Amino acid sequence: MRFVHDTLPQRVCFGSGEAAVHLAAQAAELGATRIMLIAAKPETQLADTIAGVLPVALRHDDVVMHVPVEVAERAREAAVANRIDALVSVGGGSTTGLAKAVAMTTGLPIIAVPTTYAGSEATPVWGLTEGAKKTTGVDVMVLPRVIVYDATLTMSLPVDMSVASGLNALAHCVDSLWGPNADPINAAFAAEGIRSLSEGLPRVVADPMDLGGREHALYAAYLSAAAFASAGSGLHHKICHVLGGKYNLPHAQTHATVLPYVLAFNAPAAPDAERRIAAAFGSASAIDGLVELKQELNAPHALADYGFTEDSIAEAAAAILPSVPASNPRPVTAADLERLLRAAQAGTDPRTAFK
Amino acid sequence: MRFVHDTLPQRVCFGSGEAAVHLAAQAAELGATRIMLIAAKPETQLADTIAGVLPVALRHDDVVMHVPVEVAERAREAAVANRIDALVSVGGGSTTGLAKAVAMTTGLPIIAVPTTYAGSEATPVWGLTEGAKKTTGVDVMVLPRVIVYDATLTMSLPVDMSVASGLNALAHCVDSLWGPNADPINAAFAAEGIRSLSEGLPRVVADPMDLGGREHALYAAYLSAAAFASAGSGLHHKICHVLGGKYNLPHAQTHATVLPYVLAFNAPAAPDAERRIAAAFGSASAIDGLVELKQELNAPHALADYGFTEDSIAEAAAAILPSVPASNPRPVTAADLERLLRAAQAGTDPRTAFK
Repeated sequence: MRFVHDTLPQRVCFGSGEAAVHLAAQAAELGATRIMLIAAKPETQLADTIAGVLPVALRHDDVVMHVPVEVAERAREAAVANRIDALVSVGGGSTTGLAKAVAMTTGLPIIAVPTTYAGSEATPVWGLTEGAKKTTGVDVMVLPRVIVYDATLTMSLPVDMSVASGLNALAHCVDSLWGPNADPINAAFAAEGIRSLSEGLPRVVADPMDLGGREHALYAAYLSAAAFASAGSGLHHKICHVLGGKYNLPHAQTHATVLPYVLAFNAPAAPDAERRIAAAFGSASAIDGLVELKQELNAPHALADYGFTEDSIAEAAAAILPSVPASNPRPVTAADLERLLRAAQAGTDPRTAFK
Repeated sequence: MRFVHDTLPQRVCFGSGEAAVHLAAQAAELGATRIMLIAAKPETQLADTIAGVLPVALRHDDVVMHVPVEVAERAREAAVANRIDALVSVGGGSTTGLAKAVAMTTGLPIIAVPTTYAGSEATPVWGLTEGAKKTTGVDVMVLPRVIVYDATLTMSLPVDMSVASGLNALAHCVDSLWGPNADPINAAFAAEGIRSLSEGLPRVVADPMDLGGREHALYAAYLSAAAFASAGSGLHHKICHVLGGKYNLPHAQTHATVLPYVLAFNAPAAPDAERRIAAAFGSASAIDGLVELKQELNAPHALADYGFTEDSIAEAAAAILPSVPASNPRPVTAADLERLLRAAQAGTDPRTAFK
């Protein structure tokens, strides 16, 4: 057992229907008097319903996916011009990301109110895009001081997006077990996240209004992000990064499709991770648990359905190979990657893909 | 699911035989130039072997159990007089506690190197005694910035003390599942702690030189302390506090003896905690897991063996009753406490004590 693990200072307030109360109390505790309320246009009404008594000096709805630098710059200028002393973000990953971009240059504290399972609120990772180029970095300054989780705010997230976002969180958990900085503390978070997702997501699918199911998924989103930010990207995320960037495949669906194949490939070489995942699913093996969950969720299962064609497999494998993490529990060849991508492209049963 | 959970900023460096290397790197990162090395007399030699290249300006061995205020005051004055800029503590709970007492008034950063499973290094809790009166408090200022865990430093801890200290950590885990601020994040830490202790302690008993076993116990000590500091004292600790204070029973043995009875009493009313504990032990039920572990460890099982007599039971129950936490999953009457204490005094099987 050898590791260095940093725990980060953050307050997590969790309660369904309590966002307004938590927000008011936490903003007061920060001594905020001029708040910039960041929410994308589709969420401004939602944001207003929970902003209640907050001293909002500025509403900002200029939110764009992947945080383009010019969008970040406009938000930063607005914060300074309005003498803002705290940021409140209400929304998904891009909204939290914009608040982080402002915090990065201004040092302003963030209270993040997530409405998806993206998990950005639980990490010190920021991201900015300039044209097609995405830059990311880590700065403890951008870590939200407070997260306010309220599952009622996720009730309007459609079931298919809940499943996709939830499986993305599941991928964070699984990949963190063999990421470059994997450690037992991350693994405990990841296992708890898998357990909570495997309980919550089927309930959301069975009944989109099941608040308890959404609570489990939201709680798991926190755990998955904390684990993943600490462990770093493993094989799964390296594969999906290339697939997303090079073939423009949809983010969450790609993750949901590829994950079982990475798990099936790595599991024989990672018995501890295999056991933990199986135990968290309550299944005979890790891969059984994942395949059964995906079936129950009617989740994406073949990259072919998203336009990824067989003739791209060799090229994709070659592009992925250099970024395979040294920490991966099983050595990875180009032929391995081709086999993995071929199975994921066709959607064949991952349990037999490497037999 | 409703909770507020604070994560605290701390670096955990874990590696057997790596204490000297970690210490040097972490002290340099803090910019320390005049270190006060705090270690009790029995540990000064050990401390010197790992202090290596550190810029030690002062060695301080005036360590006393429970940190009497006059001892704290002398250490604080020494730190100021020697223009100390960082504290390094090497030892058990009392040594870490003295460093915290100095940090409290000076704001100096602490690097803690624990040599037992006491867990103080992972909490912002300080304690001071004045005469017979113990005062405790919480101040994030006293939380060590860095913990350096090195299981080789615990090899000299005798097996019986390892077991007692380990079961004390186990009590932190179990009691944190129903403490006043119990929450799912603490519970995940607690479950991981139970899992790791139930793997590590039997290995230490089977072979005191089994480094892997001691690593598991040390890692669990961290988890148990983090969980317990966040969740707060539950029924078990309230009982042991009275028994220790009023009847002068030995700390660790009292915890080891009482825990199964509290678990047997609470489990029927706390099915989630019961399932988690059972799963962590890998046993049919929580109480089975704990009883089997204690048998394997040949652990203390009757308060009678430590001088607690039957005729104190009614008085002890009356003293405990007012401090029973409102959060306890099962209502507690004086008669319940008497029954529990009677069983713990005699050491009867906890599985039948409440039938």
